[in-house]
Amino acid sequence: MKSIIEKYGHKRVVIVKGGITRHRSIFNGLKVFVENEFSNHLLQKPEVVIIHDAVRPFVEEDILSKVVMAAKEHGAAGAIRPLVSTVIASAADGCLDHSLERARYRASEMPQAFLFDIIYEAYQQCTDYDLDYGTECLHLALKYCKTNAKLVEGTADLWKVTYKRDLYAAESIIKDNLSQQVCVITDVKEAVAQIGFLLHETLKSQQIEAVSISLSKSDSHLQNIFSGQCYNFVCINDKKYAIQEAQQLVDMLEKSNLPLLYPVVLILMHLDISENISFSIGIEELTRIKKFAGEMKKKNILVYGLLIQYKDHLVLQKIVNSAAALIMALIKDRNPELIGQLLVA
Amino acid sequence: MKSIIEKYGHKRVVIVKGGITRHRSIFNGLKVFVENEFSNHLLQKPEVVIIHDAVRPFVEEDILSKVVMAAKEHGAAGAIRPLVSTVIASAADGCLDHSLERARYRASEMPQAFLFDIIYEAYQQCTDYDLDYGTECLHLALKYCKTNAKLVEGTADLWKVTYKRDLYAAESIIKDNLSQQVCVITDVKEAVAQIGFLLHETLKSQQIEAVSISLSKSDSHLQNIFSGQCYNFVCINDKKYAIQEAQQLVDMLEKSNLPLLYPVVLILMHLDISENISFSIGIEELTRIKKFAGEMKKKNILVYGLLIQYKDHLVLQKIVNSAAALIMALIKDRNPELIGQLLVA
Repeated sequence: MKSIIEKYGHKRVVIVKGGITRHRSIFNGLKVFVENEFSNHLLQKPEVVIIHDAVRPFVEEDILSKVVMAAKEHGAAGAIRPLVSTVIASAADGCLDHSLERARYRASEMPQAFLFDIIYEAYQQCTDYDLDYGTECLHLALKYCKTNAKLVEGTADLWKVTYKRDLYAAESIIKDNLSQQVCVITDVKEAVAQIGFLLHETLKSQQIEAVSISLSKSDSHLQNIFSGQCYNFVCINDKKYAIQEAQQLVDMLEKSNLPLLYPVVLILMHLDISENISFSIGIEELTRIKKFAGEMKKKNILVYGLLIQYKDHLVLQKIVNSAAALIMALIKDRNPELIGQLLVA
Repeated sequence: MKSIIEKYGHKRVVIVKGGITRHRSIFNGLKVFVENEFSNHLLQKPEVVIIHDAVRPFVEEDILSKVVMAAKEHGAAGAIRPLVSTVIASAADGCLDHSLERARYRASEMPQAFLFDIIYEAYQQCTDYDLDYGTECLHLALKYCKTNAKLVEGTADLWKVTYKRDLYAAESIIKDNLSQQVCVITDVKEAVAQIGFLLHETLKSQQIEAVSISLSKSDSHLQNIFSGQCYNFVCINDKKYAIQEAQQLVDMLEKSNLPLLYPVVLILMHLDISENISFSIGIEELTRIKKFAGEMKKKNILVYGLLIQYKDHLVLQKIVNSAAALIMALIKDRNPELIGQLLVA
């Protein structure tokens, strides 16, 4: 945790040792705000605190804001979701005792927010039984402070990553989010610019947010794209696997000093403009791009090669469609095993 | 549904029209067993019926057997799972009324099984309110037939595919299951057989069930592999992209008449044994494999090319490791956009 805080430059974070149960960990976190060593320094006792689970990674600012505002008014608030399955009570013999009417109940999720004084008071009054076997903060606020929490409808993405399948789902959601935007980089040569334009339009027609720039433009434009959290770049060039241009982009990315939370995809698209119908790919080219991809991997950049042939107007759109499909497949998969491979559109 | 039944040759399936609610659909299904037109013919009134949701695709034989046996003894039985979130009741003002102690309750899942006479009797006594707003079959058996269902602990895979993320999870589970077994096909030439052996051992060391055969062997061996539901084949050959050998395999696969529930992955691995260090890949080769892959796609077979160079003993294992990593990536992704591409290990 300390290395993460350092790496991403968080300035207002304090790490607190957890307890052996959920409630004991939360109580430890709350205590820090009233302990003397911190109170005058980094942390001041807040009006409202938010409690959240790390296993719910897709929390949006909107729901945080909603529970905070509701907590200010009601003393406590928490996100809820409809029940997916019916809830039942079992008898001692392992048989059904009764089932609950699904529409009358809700799943209690996170985040939850509280007036600090209410939740701290509730934890101070907790019994050891509560601290060891309880799981629900809203319950403590109700039981010890007579505070009926306001319930706020949350989004489906608040679910708790619990099983292996949830990790698959979380990975796919992240990859989906990362593949919404592609930056197409060209130089000013006519053929290259034309392909860049066609690719841009083709991606856009597939609901991808495409941004096009040429590397000759000033750094500041690219800087904006980096800070816009674009994680996908296609460099189009008519030189064979323009490692140098790619290296220039990587240097700018590094200089921008933005923390790369996720792997960046960098596709080196080589436009073959030779009239020669029967061309071939030499082993040296393959080796060069593999070596470059291996080095970039250490910087969390996934490099793939993509070859397209510049042909007459009639088939050009077809080739660009095929290139766009390959680009989207590479971006969505972000497969580290396929780096340094040269695909052909 | 009719085309699925025909395609896979199901002989004992009857399709029943659904109702406008869950309970009405289930009731329609039960009625068929006692209606005259069927009772003497295809369907006889069963002792036990199983009720299941199509949105829970990963049901295992084990849990089906357990609920059936329990239903025979208790009259009714259903799968349950621990609750992931606390369940709460809300008051009319949208605030917390009370929370349930999570450990005392369970999520009711499917499959459920019933003595036919009990569940049919329960549905006959149902009110319109039950049929329109109820969701829980166990509840009906309890309410109308005083049958306390036996609750059987199910596996996590019984979850209900509900949200988009669940589709991601389901896809990953299927792909994971499909990539457990790989069949390596070689001919009898020494270099090819050696690579085949090394690949086999490398895959096995990664907990992949590898089966090796040579195409010269009798059909019956391959037939066993097909019927063992192997969905991944690697054909190693020292001829350039041995389309002919691959076609032979495809013919046998088609002759086997097994329904391909999922796409088959077929990797054409070309072993370059030339001493030439500086070789190249011609556009004709690339075009040939792409064309073949395009044709195979229509048969639900995903074809990829993989090139490896036969080098001296010292680096051979390293190259095979790299090939195995690419093979596993292709098999796990089963990406239809990447078919016909030629990767280099």
